[in-house]
Amino acid sequence: LALPLSDPADLLQKVSVVLVRTTHPGNIGATARAMKTMGLARLVLVEPRYFPDAQATAMASGADDVLAAARVCASLDEALKDTRFAVAMTARVRELAYEPVNIRVAAAQVLAEAGASEVALVFGTEMSGLSNDEVLKCQLAAMIPAVKGYSSLNLAAAVQLMAYELRMSLLGGVVGMPPVQEPAQIGDIERFYEHLQRNLIDSGFLDPAFPKKLMERLRRLFGRARLEKEEVNILRGILTEWDKRMAERPLGKRADKVD
Amino acid sequence: LALPLSDPADLLQKVSVVLVRTTHPGNIGATARAMKTMGLARLVLVEPRYFPDAQATAMASGADDVLAAARVCASLDEALKDTRFAVAMTARVRELAYEPVNIRVAAAQVLAEAGASEVALVFGTEMSGLSNDEVLKCQLAAMIPAVKGYSSLNLAAAVQLMAYELRMSLLGGVVGMPPVQEPAQIGDIERFYEHLQRNLIDSGFLDPAFPKKLMERLRRLFGRARLEKEEVNILRGILTEWDKRMAERPLGKRADKVD
Repeated sequence: LALPLSDPADLLQKVSVVLVRTTHPGNIGATARAMKTMGLARLVLVEPRYFPDAQATAMASGADDVLAAARVCASLDEALKDTRFAVAMTARVRELAYEPVNIRVAAAQVLAEAGASEVALVFGTEMSGLSNDEVLKCQLAAMIPAVKGYSSLNLAAAVQLMAYELRMSLLGGVVGMPPVQEPAQIGDIERFYEHLQRNLIDSGFLDPAFPKKLMERLRRLFGRARLEKEEVNILRGILTEWDKRMAERPLGKRADKVD
Repeated sequence: LALPLSDPADLLQKVSVVLVRTTHPGNIGATARAMKTMGLARLVLVEPRYFPDAQATAMASGADDVLAAARVCASLDEALKDTRFAVAMTARVRELAYEPVNIRVAAAQVLAEAGASEVALVFGTEMSGLSNDEVLKCQLAAMIPAVKGYSSLNLAAAVQLMAYELRMSLLGGVVGMPPVQEPAQIGDIERFYEHLQRNLIDSGFLDPAFPKKLMERLRRLFGRARLEKEEVNILRGILTEWDKRMAERPLGKRADKVD
């Protein structure tokens, strides 16, 4: 698996660290520092409680440039819209979301993807991490193999470990699976899920009053596949054709169903 | 390197973290937390500026037991006197001391040594690290491969990385991508493809005269995902619901399309 022959450190410039709803500004500063020690520069903050903040600056300790260049977003969707590969950092195995890989495996995969497009590492809030919905907006879940019963790593410490694994991987470690041909943009994938959901409601398969995690299950399936751009087009085309058939159907037929 | 057959986690109980002349008590607390997340429990403090201290306790965040059991020593000699293998953590290549190995290599060596005796990981003061004399009291020097020109890791972050590498080494290195939960049987997957194909023909999306590799593309997508048994059931359910809607549609509507 060949990486591009240009300066390999360039790959790290394609990697963003996305912090979602960070509570303590000191952790934002410490994250900037952790990133910079390992060669990462792009910090994205989704709804930070306090930013900018003196505590963030104090903890950045020389990584003020990373902090100053940080992008603040109103939602995770906004943060990820131009990204093709996002890794959800998770402290636990979840019932419905992806089975997490360890961060060493994830790092190899991130580098393989960064050769082709922008990549994001997504870290949740200090107390509760990412929601299942947020994990399922990503294409891979990664876990730090902490001790069971005391897995509460500090947020910046978790960033430090993941950034370190990226750097180690860059310096000649394990190489990941090749990325799909032309990965779809996450914004386009989200629009596909919206379309699919409308369609499933129209067909009667999905009852919005009792969704029973159906969409989460489907996100998990398609997320594992790493949808390509062309595949999203095909899936949207299938749904559009079904929509047309549905629209042709006379309303009278519908009335006999209790919606 | 063969590990003893007893509980491998016992090996980590033989490893001490020695902090030399730590300036900020918050770093002592954060170190305790970093250690505990990775299964290390033995903290040794050589001439700490402030200890015990409220800031240390605050930063320990649940690792108070590690802090409470910390041993305070008056010198590095005293801290190391019962140890047979000590690793000096260093942020730079030094002229006179050992050529450092990276922390991954050091971790493997530490575990091998811990099978036979007590081991210490020695971290210097925040501003200037260990002196050359202190490095030379140890048997190995280890370095975190940080970016040249910005290698100033936070002390607890450095402990976190080394402790993580020990744990990874203990867990046996890289583990592959996880399999899906309950993979579907191939026969069931084939029946799903047949059902999907009939449905796409019915909807008009797939023209059997000009199939244009559509089914191959869809197989490639779902094949990458490694469908689970339950997912095949859901997909079949979605198709069945669409079939019903299709059957409800009066034939008259169809005639206006040229098939």
